[in-house]
Amino acid sequence: MRGKISLLLISSALTLASTSLAGEGMWLPSQAPEIARQMQADGLKLDPNTLENLQSAPMNAIASLGGCSASFVSPQGLVVTNHHCVYGSIQYNSKPEKDYLKDGFLAATLADELQAAPGSRIFVIEDLRNVTAGVMEGASELAGKARFDKIEVNQKALIASCEKQPSRRCDVRAYYGGATYFLQQQLEIQDVRLVYVPAGSIGNFGGEIDNWQWPRHTGDFGFYRAYVGPDGASKPFAKENVPYKPKSWLKHAAKGVADGDFVMLAGFPGATDRYRTAAETSHFFTGVYPLQQKLLADYADQINAATEGDDKARIAYANALRGVDNFKKNLQGQLAGAEAIDLVAKKSAQEKEFRDWALAGSRKASMEPVIAALDATVAEANVARLVAIKYGLVNRGQLLAAARTLYRWTKERAKPDSEREPGFQDRDRRLVGERLTQLERRFDARVDRRLFDLALVQYRSLPPEAHNKGFDATLAKLGLDRLYADTSLGDTPARLAWLDKSAGDIEASNDPFLKLAVAMFYEDMTKENKTKDRDGRLQAARSAYTAAYIDFNKTRGRAVYPDANGSLRLTWGKVTGRKRDGMAYHPFTTAEGILEKYTGRDPFESPAKQLDLIRAKAYGAYKAPELGTLPVNFLSTVDITGGNSGSATLNAKGELVGLAFDGTIEGVISDWWFDDRLTRTIHVDARYMRWVMDKVDGAGHLLKEMEVAK
Amino acid sequence: MRGKISLLLISSALTLASTSLAGEGMWLPSQAPEIARQMQADGLKLDPNTLENLQSAPMNAIASLGGCSASFVSPQGLVVTNHHCVYGSIQYNSKPEKDYLKDGFLAATLADELQAAPGSRIFVIEDLRNVTAGVMEGASELAGKARFDKIEVNQKALIASCEKQPSRRCDVRAYYGGATYFLQQQLEIQDVRLVYVPAGSIGNFGGEIDNWQWPRHTGDFGFYRAYVGPDGASKPFAKENVPYKPKSWLKHAAKGVADGDFVMLAGFPGATDRYRTAAETSHFFTGVYPLQQKLLADYADQINAATEGDDKARIAYANALRGVDNFKKNLQGQLAGAEAIDLVAKKSAQEKEFRDWALAGSRKASMEPVIAALDATVAEANVARLVAIKYGLVNRGQLLAAARTLYRWTKERAKPDSEREPGFQDRDRRLVGERLTQLERRFDARVDRRLFDLALVQYRSLPPEAHNKGFDATLAKLGLDRLYADTSLGDTPARLAWLDKSAGDIEASNDPFLKLAVAMFYEDMTKENKTKDRDGRLQAARSAYTAAYIDFNKTRGRAVYPDANGSLRLTWGKVTGRKRDGMAYHPFTTAEGILEKYTGRDPFESPAKQLDLIRAKAYGAYKAPELGTLPVNFLSTVDITGGNSGSATLNAKGELVGLAFDGTIEGVISDWWFDDRLTRTIHVDARYMRWVMDKVDGAGHLLKEMEVAK
Repeated sequence: MRGKISLLLISSALTLASTSLAGEGMWLPSQAPEIARQMQADGLKLDPNTLENLQSAPMNAIASLGGCSASFVSPQGLVVTNHHCVYGSIQYNSKPEKDYLKDGFLAATLADELQAAPGSRIFVIEDLRNVTAGVMEGASELAGKARFDKIEVNQKALIASCEKQPSRRCDVRAYYGGATYFLQQQLEIQDVRLVYVPAGSIGNFGGEIDNWQWPRHTGDFGFYRAYVGPDGASKPFAKENVPYKPKSWLKHAAKGVADGDFVMLAGFPGATDRYRTAAETSHFFTGVYPLQQKLLADYADQINAATEGDDKARIAYANALRGVDNFKKNLQGQLAGAEAIDLVAKKSAQEKEFRDWALAGSRKASMEPVIAALDATVAEANVARLVAIKYGLVNRGQLLAAARTLYRWTKERAKPDSEREPGFQDRDRRLVGERLTQLERRFDARVDRRLFDLALVQYRSLPPEAHNKGFDATLAKLGLDRLYADTSLGDTPARLAWLDKSAGDIEASNDPFLKLAVAMFYEDMTKENKTKDRDGRLQAARSAYTAAYIDFNKTRGRAVYPDANGSLRLTWGKVTGRKRDGMAYHPFTTAEGILEKYTGRDPFESPAKQLDLIRAKAYGAYKAPELGTLPVNFLSTVDITGGNSGSATLNAKGELVGLAFDGTIEGVISDWWFDDRLTRTIHVDARYMRWVMDKVDGAGHLLKEMEVAK
Repeated sequence: MRGKISLLLISSALTLASTSLAGEGMWLPSQAPEIARQMQADGLKLDPNTLENLQSAPMNAIASLGGCSASFVSPQGLVVTNHHCVYGSIQYNSKPEKDYLKDGFLAATLADELQAAPGSRIFVIEDLRNVTAGVMEGASELAGKARFDKIEVNQKALIASCEKQPSRRCDVRAYYGGATYFLQQQLEIQDVRLVYVPAGSIGNFGGEIDNWQWPRHTGDFGFYRAYVGPDGASKPFAKENVPYKPKSWLKHAAKGVADGDFVMLAGFPGATDRYRTAAETSHFFTGVYPLQQKLLADYADQINAATEGDDKARIAYANALRGVDNFKKNLQGQLAGAEAIDLVAKKSAQEKEFRDWALAGSRKASMEPVIAALDATVAEANVARLVAIKYGLVNRGQLLAAARTLYRWTKERAKPDSEREPGFQDRDRRLVGERLTQLERRFDARVDRRLFDLALVQYRSLPPEAHNKGFDATLAKLGLDRLYADTSLGDTPARLAWLDKSAGDIEASNDPFLKLAVAMFYEDMTKENKTKDRDGRLQAARSAYTAAYIDFNKTRGRAVYPDANGSLRLTWGKVTGRKRDGMAYHPFTTAEGILEKYTGRDPFESPAKQLDLIRAKAYGAYKAPELGTLPVNFLSTVDITGGNSGSATLNAKGELVGLAFDGTIEGVISDWWFDDRLTRTIHVDARYMRWVMDKVDGAGHLLKEMEVAK
């Protein structure tokens, strides 16, 4: 599922922008005027300008869960998203005697709602404003690392200023390869509660087998509620907190969607790579992805071998294994898709068309050095990327990863907050602490040692200049036996305690993993500074390149949307199946398909009550008239990626008709190239959701709260 | 493709028989009267009794290639089968400067036809007669190994007597778990020539990517011609040989098939396991297949690692790797299919129904000991099977495998021919020699050593009692270095020369692999005798069990067909797509689908002429009126498995309408349980074949020879 991969696939590279095809585009809300005419031609019934305004409906009903998208659906702060987006909170509250993952959960009253998993947040979108001038102030004339550092300092200052407002979380991201920067401001709701989820056999029907597949029959929905202090201000969990009152909320459409209907959605897509150069594209598909495939396959084998016959260890690594399987499946889809559409040739042709324009006439003088600089820096970055992937494997030793984080943390803490590396500022303390805590549930010393040992095989295959000499020397001296025997980092309080100590304390420690982290530090910093220098040069070249690319498209009357980067985006398309010679995907699946797939065993089991209702065709008013039965999931051409999971699907009037939760594997290549013949997003139909709530789970009070007429 | 897996999947176990569902059944031709009424109800227009007669059309037009099925299609001995069934002969005749694999091959005249690959044979079916009495003579009262041996002696005698007729190849196989034995007699055509194959981009369009997939667009057809001496007798290749005149040949149907049409086919399915007990079924799906999956995955990894950067080695092992990939894909399909249909539960329910009947009333006294004996022997065999799989891996060392064959050969040669182990008689000399020769193209000493070394890891994981002490001691003494340095078995003439020497010569040899083979021999024989004893007990229990199962079905008015075992079978069904909620497979693909898949790169490239013709829609009379275009492949419910590749697909009047060449991956579970909702056979439409011959390849003279009206 797309949501699951969001964090794995988010790349740190600066990304670019391009033209829009039919159905294509992850648009900034501020671009609504540019795309208004096309949206209306495709069926939009709202005034397109309302989509530009983040202070009014429907856009101010959109929220983020950090990694997933969500929406407010009642004046009482009720939030709908995917089942797989609230999975952690269901798991956190489940016990053997009350297994909500299996049975689902429904709070009868506000008082019965359950605290979400620690760290759960609802971010309410408030603003997304252009801050390019502020970010580039004093940076435009700089080069390399100086440029990189100046941009970073400016970004941190803008964020700090924004976060002076209470309970706001702000970010400043690069768009169009750094030609533009936007500041995104969100209200951070800290008290999040679990309201309702269906049984796992509905919410995750089909499981891993159906993941990325059509036909699909997954009831992938769940509800949170946002709570604030009695004064309306964001507060951590407290009994006296009250439901948050959003400025607006989405209304359920009285009529569901049908084949060919206009649909749109707003959410937080994580990362796409549509505007990389042809050389970068080729590098990913011939170098990076095949390498990652191999490393992931080895890793899965190693985890399986290391945890065989050890139930506790198997459970600890089950999540890592699921992530690996999901990423492997995605990579396989990317590689097959690139082959099917001849991606590199397409990119090359597109690039040639632009460069021919850019190097013509008076543009040549300014663009020739830009292109040369970009290509040279990209080539440099490509080489470094493969090395970095293998070097990075040493962090599969989770205690080493923790030790490296702790030492860096203490080193940064010695500086004023504004001068610290992003990710190591005071504002990051909570997240760092949570990650260091989480290790305890995903770690087994015996397994970790084996995985670390095997990661070292890859590390050792690196050329000598890519090695970390401090690491090599210290590892040789300590040896794996001592590393694992003498460390106390496996103990959570002991591990967390280092967060409040100084770098000197760590340097004086006898903990072997901390010694190893200290030994690595200075060479790692040298490497990081080289990377920053390259990133500074990349930003200079790519921002100029992309600005020209936007100009080029303007001459052809085409608007350009930026690559996904985790910020709020708008996309639209239509409900439609997919035809190939000899085969057809229908746009809708139906309740009868659940019976067709039902085996009575995970992942194809269903609650008995649901089966009875389907057998009795007790669909009431939830039937789709065109289908004569209850729709379950539907396909559309809307352009999404990981991070969009949970996005409300809206009809032409901006009313709720479903939730996006996955895409088909043939279409994942859209991360690089959107082709509406291939790419389909999978949505859960809101009629199915309401039918389950009404008939299966008796959640009528929530339907009432959402003002759904019975 | 199914043909590719036939040899890998043929199991040596005795198999059983059962009842028929709609579309289900691989029937003996002699059963035609039992199924006549149903075939007619389903649309057969022929007199069903003609299907019983192997001396008349259409059955005497059916031939086997050994591993593939085929048919005569002209009075001049022209034979049609799949492209992938004549692949070896195309490869054998190809050279860099005339690459028939790539470009295809068409003989303009008889004189231009090319000798097929060494060992190619066409077996013309002549008889399939019940020889149960002869096989069981003197065996019925015996038990264990004595029973096994007596049955084997009787089988060999029957075969020897049948093969006294010149140029006949005969086999005696067990049906219904040994309740029945049939002798199959075939005329062995030794002079086989390649007549015509389309370009690889037609014959193998879609390659491994489309293997086992629908929608499909593969022109999987090719033509051989059978030659005999001027006197009409079967002769090895000679210039003066003349085309063989078959007693009958298939006619092309004037009208192609349409959705819902009756189709049937006759061919040589290799092996199915539909009548194994529930305990055996569970054993395969929880033990054997997962183990094989893991071993195959390791093997593929090892081959990839060992051949990396060595083009010669990569080519030598490419075939092994393709086989592994194909088998892995099949196993994955089997496992997913078993899960989807809940195979073990279904088998258990079916078994319970029969056993309740078998243990009721007067049957109990005789059936209780039969069931107990079967279950106990099956349990014993299950344990032995897992050990045998791991033990068998030592033969991945191809030189060791060759040495073991050679030593066994010389040991058997010391006995009178009739007393030798089947597979080591004079009649087997050609095949053994061919296999020992073939090694030269599929072997690399460095790679072999590494694979052997890694196979030993599995061997060593066996419990001590499963080890071969002679092997262990000799291997320890010789060591891998000496084994590979001092052997001369890597040299083909040296290797083959041992076939004519004595066991004493081999025992006196200093070749380390021969020493190892000698050291293994006596313990292997002890093990083999134990297996034969168990197989004797299995035959006794299973034949009685199955006879009762046939009786049980008779009481319910159901005919019972035997499991596939490589002998001639008849099956019928209908042309139909496959619908699931949210998705549909159409029964036909069309020429336009080739353009849809075309990328210009293997496996989705096409001859320019073909592309032009499709773009011009130059389909002439080959169009399907219902489709308005040229059909390429179609789906049906006919019940086939590996070995059926190349089977002519016949319409209700027994006329040629296509060739079976593959099945869909969702349906491979039909090897264990036929479900016509899941299982689809993929056929190449004869209209596409003729269009390619006529318009693309200019093979009008062959169309004329087949009496196809222009």
